[in-house]
Amino acid sequence: MSGQPQTGGGPRPVLALSGGIGGSKLALGLARVLSPGALTVVANTGDDFEHLGLHISPDIDTVTYTLAGVQNPETGWGRADETWSFMTALHELGAETWFQLGDRDLAVHVERTRRLRAGVPLSEITADIGRSFGIASRILPMTDRRVRTRVITQDGPLDFQRYFVEQRCAPAVTGFVFDGAPEAKPHPDILAMLCNPELRAVVICPSNPYISVDPILALPGLWDALAACNAPVIAVSPIIGHEAVKGPTAKMMAELGYTVDVLTVAQHYRGLLDGLVIDTVDAAMAGRLHVPVVVCPTLMRSLSDREELATAVLGFADRLGRCARRTG
Amino acid sequence: MSGQPQTGGGPRPVLALSGGIGGSKLALGLARVLSPGALTVVANTGDDFEHLGLHISPDIDTVTYTLAGVQNPETGWGRADETWSFMTALHELGAETWFQLGDRDLAVHVERTRRLRAGVPLSEITADIGRSFGIASRILPMTDRRVRTRVITQDGPLDFQRYFVEQRCAPAVTGFVFDGAPEAKPHPDILAMLCNPELRAVVICPSNPYISVDPILALPGLWDALAACNAPVIAVSPIIGHEAVKGPTAKMMAELGYTVDVLTVAQHYRGLLDGLVIDTVDAAMAGRLHVPVVVCPTLMRSLSDREELATAVLGFADRLGRCARRTG
Repeated sequence: MSGQPQTGGGPRPVLALSGGIGGSKLALGLARVLSPGALTVVANTGDDFEHLGLHISPDIDTVTYTLAGVQNPETGWGRADETWSFMTALHELGAETWFQLGDRDLAVHVERTRRLRAGVPLSEITADIGRSFGIASRILPMTDRRVRTRVITQDGPLDFQRYFVEQRCAPAVTGFVFDGAPEAKPHPDILAMLCNPELRAVVICPSNPYISVDPILALPGLWDALAACNAPVIAVSPIIGHEAVKGPTAKMMAELGYTVDVLTVAQHYRGLLDGLVIDTVDAAMAGRLHVPVVVCPTLMRSLSDREELATAVLGFADRLGRCARRTG
Repeated sequence: MSGQPQTGGGPRPVLALSGGIGGSKLALGLARVLSPGALTVVANTGDDFEHLGLHISPDIDTVTYTLAGVQNPETGWGRADETWSFMTALHELGAETWFQLGDRDLAVHVERTRRLRAGVPLSEITADIGRSFGIASRILPMTDRRVRTRVITQDGPLDFQRYFVEQRCAPAVTGFVFDGAPEAKPHPDILAMLCNPELRAVVICPSNPYISVDPILALPGLWDALAACNAPVIAVSPIIGHEAVKGPTAKMMAELGYTVDVLTVAQHYRGLLDGLVIDTVDAAMAGRLHVPVVVCPTLMRSLSDREELATAVLGFADRLGRCARRTG
């Protein structure tokens, strides 16, 4: 297999694994530099939850809104030009308001919940929502089954959103449980893509390894399928220097007893990676990583940052090709 | 029993039967002229329905918003200062948008649906919502059981909201079915109030007799309890001249083969009424009604119109007292 991005059969597919805000930025970059339809983004559903009787899929929605270009540019989650009348009225009713739901955002939750109750799989609903937003890429829930991340903290176990939103990640973390993961199956199209000899790359987006990527990797058979697939598996480090760009990744890493750096990221994905993309500030670490490395700017502030990082990741994958498998 | 409005035990209770917009106007008038807490409004739930997975109770909400002073003054339904981001986003998703749900309004539907699914009775939820709006009157669903009005039309039977909202009452009506009514029970507090010797009056608000009041009267035992109660039962005609103030009352009346006038209203409630309040434009009809009549302005444009009509109704009830029972 060559490093050519295309063959006669159309654009070669790329599979990205993503959580929410950080991952979706690179997913957008990939979507923009790839041919329409070439990208499939597998979204974590471990932080899905039922709230106010509605099924909320935070990572799916963040990826969807980001690829649709309707995401709130300030928060990274939720929608641009949002209104908050529902939350105001909910507060007046004395109902639970710790989880913010904008009025536009709510349409997705209500419609998804309605269809889930009618027996439609989450993957089908997600595809339809993506289509209604005109998204050419495919957004695929990691599974149609129920998986729920629980965060084990020094104060006891917490449902993910209680930890993440209500408690603002304050309790010190000691571990994670992915309820339902052992019984869940990865969406079959993920496994099919991993078997596809045309697959160009698997990109592990710069999402939180513990709460965004690990729930995906915990699905039975997925780690082995990734390890066995012909396409190069490339991760982009969510750690830059000794910090995470966003969210509790660095805090968790420290609480779990690890050094907060790209070595810990590489160690976390050991056995899976054909390449790791690290930031220029970590260039000095490159020699200590037992996996091929590309050093480039990974902080994605602008749209062109996202595209340039995506281009670097794909170029890296193409150079590694099949030959470089399992050197980590 | 005298016509005095109060006894030593506090204000004497008044029971009003109401549908949505027309009925809630008089309910507001009654609430304003009575002592706080004296009024109980029994709301029709025959036009409740499940929409987008949410339990919608249009008449309860119209009464609630009206008594709370937050109703949309232009439409009569929904809330003032409403925003419509949810509907806009729902339209973009390609979901059903024939039933308008404002962003503030939605909070009530979501919270009610959540609690109903948790097993809380509709009456308890309705009471809590009323309290959160600071409403001193009690709003009581006619029943906690499921009753669904179906409109029999020349095009076949239609679920109520499909007829009312989606088809804008266009199909000619031949009858009505109140699905579930024979198995439902009136809320027990309604029957308890009707047995209360202190009850001052039962007011049938100027709501549509066929689709707003009849679902209430169709509940097993309620007609008999009304007919047997000691307090005078007074209806306010929803027909003025040969027209209804609002909604399809006159159209339905004609389609069912009746003359559109107050005589038909009186005939409809025959055996139940101790008095009928008709508008001044119908003064000439008074002599043809076989029930005591008060003639006064019944069109409620202003807040003082509502209060004056409420005062007239209560004065009429107090004059009739117990002695005038069953002359209709």
